[in-house]
Amino acid sequence: MTASHDVLGIGNAIVDVLARTDDEFLKLNRLAKGAMSLIDAERAEALYQAMNGSVECSGGSCANTMAGIASLGGNAAYVGKVRDDGLGWTFRHDIRAAGVAFETPAATSGPPTARCLIFVTPDAQRTMNTYLGACVTLGPDDIDVKAVAAAKVTYIEGYLWDPPEAKAAVRKAIDAAHAAGRLVSMTLSDAFCVDRWRAEFLDLVRTKIDILFANEAELMSLYQTKSFDAALQAMRRDGKVAALTRSAKGSVVVRGEEVHVVDAAPVSRVVDTTGAGDLYAAGFLYGWTRGLPLAECARIGGVAAGEVISHFGARPEQPLKTLV
Amino acid sequence: MTASHDVLGIGNAIVDVLARTDDEFLKLNRLAKGAMSLIDAERAEALYQAMNGSVECSGGSCANTMAGIASLGGNAAYVGKVRDDGLGWTFRHDIRAAGVAFETPAATSGPPTARCLIFVTPDAQRTMNTYLGACVTLGPDDIDVKAVAAAKVTYIEGYLWDPPEAKAAVRKAIDAAHAAGRLVSMTLSDAFCVDRWRAEFLDLVRTKIDILFANEAELMSLYQTKSFDAALQAMRRDGKVAALTRSAKGSVVVRGEEVHVVDAAPVSRVVDTTGAGDLYAAGFLYGWTRGLPLAECARIGGVAAGEVISHFGARPEQPLKTLV
Repeated sequence: MTASHDVLGIGNAIVDVLARTDDEFLKLNRLAKGAMSLIDAERAEALYQAMNGSVECSGGSCANTMAGIASLGGNAAYVGKVRDDGLGWTFRHDIRAAGVAFETPAATSGPPTARCLIFVTPDAQRTMNTYLGACVTLGPDDIDVKAVAAAKVTYIEGYLWDPPEAKAAVRKAIDAAHAAGRLVSMTLSDAFCVDRWRAEFLDLVRTKIDILFANEAELMSLYQTKSFDAALQAMRRDGKVAALTRSAKGSVVVRGEEVHVVDAAPVSRVVDTTGAGDLYAAGFLYGWTRGLPLAECARIGGVAAGEVISHFGARPEQPLKTLV
Repeated sequence: MTASHDVLGIGNAIVDVLARTDDEFLKLNRLAKGAMSLIDAERAEALYQAMNGSVECSGGSCANTMAGIASLGGNAAYVGKVRDDGLGWTFRHDIRAAGVAFETPAATSGPPTARCLIFVTPDAQRTMNTYLGACVTLGPDDIDVKAVAAAKVTYIEGYLWDPPEAKAAVRKAIDAAHAAGRLVSMTLSDAFCVDRWRAEFLDLVRTKIDILFANEAELMSLYQTKSFDAALQAMRRDGKVAALTRSAKGSVVVRGEEVHVVDAAPVSRVVDTTGAGDLYAAGFLYGWTRGLPLAECARIGGVAAGEVISHFGARPEQPLKTLV
């Protein structure tokens, strides 16, 4: 069967609310710098009131990745749950405008569209606070097994383990992908997320995942090692294709005996690291679905990440295909 | 046969003359920043006159490495040529005081003991200017084949290709080591040095060297690639054990299918990078000759390099065995 999409991504559909702040504010509001924390509606409202000069833009880790693939010239589809409210329509408009197919029906009742309050400090680090909202209503009925079977790669985010029903949707998608002889790819999403779901993630990685994305903190959390290299060796023993990102140190990509150590793309000024990992995955998967050599997939990932960290916000501002 | 030394090193015996300077001075004196340039006696005299507040200390890349091995508690011997002059006696005193066996007789005629005028800029980079002096008189007669055969590893520096007679000494040592079933290790020394001797170095690496040390500029120069990863892949195809240093990015060490990506040791302030590669090799070879796992050899190399870059000068100030 011809693939109708290069990559079909499943994730938490989230609108980002970004504001610049300082370390003092993070401390005052007990925010764990650099991490993604889950918050309830009340806390979301209180933090939102405390934000100064915020801007809203469609986000969600996996959705950013799909937007990146489309920006590179690839063919991407997205599955995620918004509510039929203002933010939900904004999310739908933006991801479609980015060139990504998005057909998941909006929830007509229940909590509002999810939002992530992101505080960017002068060191370009982002601290994220997610109110999951409508994401908790994503379930197996939202998975179109034909669409999954027709995509070269199905891509899932570890964040999907936080809403209780989503993992059933993920398992349905994984089974459909593998039944059709397709590949399944996953990002570990966040070191704290790995901490919450380590046993399930380890089992998943070992039994279901073909291509793994992780940054060094996530990988070290998964394998509970004190050094990146020890985690890398554990990963190699598990025998998966893996793309491991290391911020300014670039990335290490692995496939069997193949190991590549690829430099980060030069960036004149790092403004906001939100979306760096998401866009790296976009570039890598774009290259992968075109059958490019592994080191070239990593290079494209680095270029896409370099673009997104050079400005505010987690989606590319320039068409990425002009950069690679 | 029981090894009488862990490592026997052969190198250019050089006294370092260090001074702090700025980029303006380098430009004014047409000095290639970060590199090692060869200079004649006249230029050495002129540059020495222009140096402000210099300090002298025994150096030489390979000699620094042997001093590092001794400081770690290993057993090291050194072969190199000084003249029977003041600097020559200083060199001999210092390397012996460091605990390294050094029996090569001093030249009694010919050029004086070699010196390297090192300019350290505020960014901790060092720019080296070497007057080879008595090093040009090192020859095959200075190689004690019994001592070579009795050392676990013979270690040579690429810089030995610059004085015309030294490579005959090196080849004699390599043959003696291999005839005794011992290993031969080499550092590529400097990217410009690789440029001068690329064809010979490539042949040597492929046919004679068991353990290669190189920084990324040297490795990329050897294989004439534009990225570190491409050079790494070429190196892996050549199938040697290799320890590849990448400054703040740490090191990548390779042995067959084994690839380790090891972080640099944390350093509170980088003062002077002179000797970083030399001390990395010391730590690695110390670990290697004790049969430690490859990643542990790299870690010890990183700790030794971290110590030497945290102060002025190319030999350890603290006993390294207390740090590892």
